[in-house]
Amino acid sequence: MKLVRYGNPGKEKPGLVDEDGRIRDLSGVVPDIGPAQLGAAALNKLRKVNPAKLPLVRGTPRYGCPVNGVGKFIAIGLNYADHAAESGVPIPKEPVVFMKATTCLQGPNDPVMLPKGSVKTDWEVELGVVIGTRARYVSQKDALTYVAGFAVVNDVSEREFQLERGPQWDKGKGCDTFGPVGPWLVTTDEIENVQRLSMWLDVNGQRMQTGNTRTMIFNVAKLVSYVSQFMTLMPGDIITTGTPPGVGLGMKPPVYLKKGDVMTLGIEGLGEQRQVVVPFKA
Amino acid sequence: MKLVRYGNPGKEKPGLVDEDGRIRDLSGVVPDIGPAQLGAAALNKLRKVNPAKLPLVRGTPRYGCPVNGVGKFIAIGLNYADHAAESGVPIPKEPVVFMKATTCLQGPNDPVMLPKGSVKTDWEVELGVVIGTRARYVSQKDALTYVAGFAVVNDVSEREFQLERGPQWDKGKGCDTFGPVGPWLVTTDEIENVQRLSMWLDVNGQRMQTGNTRTMIFNVAKLVSYVSQFMTLMPGDIITTGTPPGVGLGMKPPVYLKKGDVMTLGIEGLGEQRQVVVPFKA
Repeated sequence: MKLVRYGNPGKEKPGLVDEDGRIRDLSGVVPDIGPAQLGAAALNKLRKVNPAKLPLVRGTPRYGCPVNGVGKFIAIGLNYADHAAESGVPIPKEPVVFMKATTCLQGPNDPVMLPKGSVKTDWEVELGVVIGTRARYVSQKDALTYVAGFAVVNDVSEREFQLERGPQWDKGKGCDTFGPVGPWLVTTDEIENVQRLSMWLDVNGQRMQTGNTRTMIFNVAKLVSYVSQFMTLMPGDIITTGTPPGVGLGMKPPVYLKKGDVMTLGIEGLGEQRQVVVPFKA
Repeated sequence: MKLVRYGNPGKEKPGLVDEDGRIRDLSGVVPDIGPAQLGAAALNKLRKVNPAKLPLVRGTPRYGCPVNGVGKFIAIGLNYADHAAESGVPIPKEPVVFMKATTCLQGPNDPVMLPKGSVKTDWEVELGVVIGTRARYVSQKDALTYVAGFAVVNDVSEREFQLERGPQWDKGKGCDTFGPVGPWLVTTDEIENVQRLSMWLDVNGQRMQTGNTRTMIFNVAKLVSYVSQFMTLMPGDIITTGTPPGVGLGMKPPVYLKKGDVMTLGIEGLGEQRQVVVPFKA
């Protein structure tokens, strides 16, 4: 299934995308797409719904973040060997874990705001992993059974805030609008091999990032298992799993986002995002 | 006011502590102590309630985290000059910001679990600041008006996970049970000067930490203002503001928590906590 939340910010309704790519309204079946809808039993119940019998959503509504009630937005750093190289740092011995503020979550096509004073805002196309079932000390072998599905994430990052204003990255990772997710939450059954997904990101139509989840240093199962050794993962938590090469920081000289730039990005099977870069506005 | 949440985990009721230190049941007045109860207007409404008219809570119920629905648990590193020195790092030029997983939040007297494989679990008594009103790019001058109140926090930390397993600290800061908060959320009007509060922590009755918020490098107003430049602070978010000297990591040789140890800690006007250290159990 491709689950969505559509409508105006804060008023999104649950939906699913039918075979023809049209949104069907799920609000008569579930109140939202959130922690209570992400476990295996709840998803199986949704799978039994006949999309053709659901109301068709007309027009082209805005997409929200496809999961509501995200408790933790966990991120993995330097998880593609080539990206570590372009960042000028060695390949990590074990996953680098940091956090994005949940207040940065937004829809996949909502504008990305440059924070006040920002001169180094950068892009990162990433595979997002949405937890379906509470996971604590789970093995790598079992890890994927705790996952509800996958979504495209743009791990937008302010490099000066992240790297030049202290040793901890969270400051540059969780600014408002720095977490576009979606358009869809694609359930795991739709993805044959999550480690064989191509991914890309363009700025103003120019290809910047090209990658494939096959070149992850630590794969999704390892990451879910690993993070669950340090904190309990809850339904609705998102782990964004690192970015392939081609970020602005890695260019020579570095290139950063400016007002009016347009980011488009996507991952095979998970849909596409488009964000216009805008100055800060309250 | 001293606001509390009391009762079994996940079933806490809202309450307030009356003049005689007894808990009064607030559940007839508000459904919980959470984001909706923390703004100035909502708190003023609670202030008008006569505690003597509220049902008295008998016995000695467990305290939960005094705030429900915490969206972000933000932490400041190295915010006391002496603690930076004992950690062997220079005084930061600006606040060091990291995040604790919200899943680590718990009541002030709940046991603290040693994570599996942990050999370096450590204590940190800290002043917690609970946000009352949405705050974005607020000035230092206005910052305290966005604060609902204060609470004791034990920023429990696994030093190996934090410092020896990669460059980012979050891994060692958000393990389950690593965030005791409370017993009370003390509203700002009860604290004459938040920068003049003495604080202490004992392990097995032996004094380990002694400090006072007057020796913070960046004061509370500065921290709220500063963090609000990087992310929007929401009602119920907690900022824990760093620890004074005396953590286990700073001892020569370092001393860490082991099964059966008892931590007691407190801050002037904000009450006391007591945690027994236990091995991991599912």
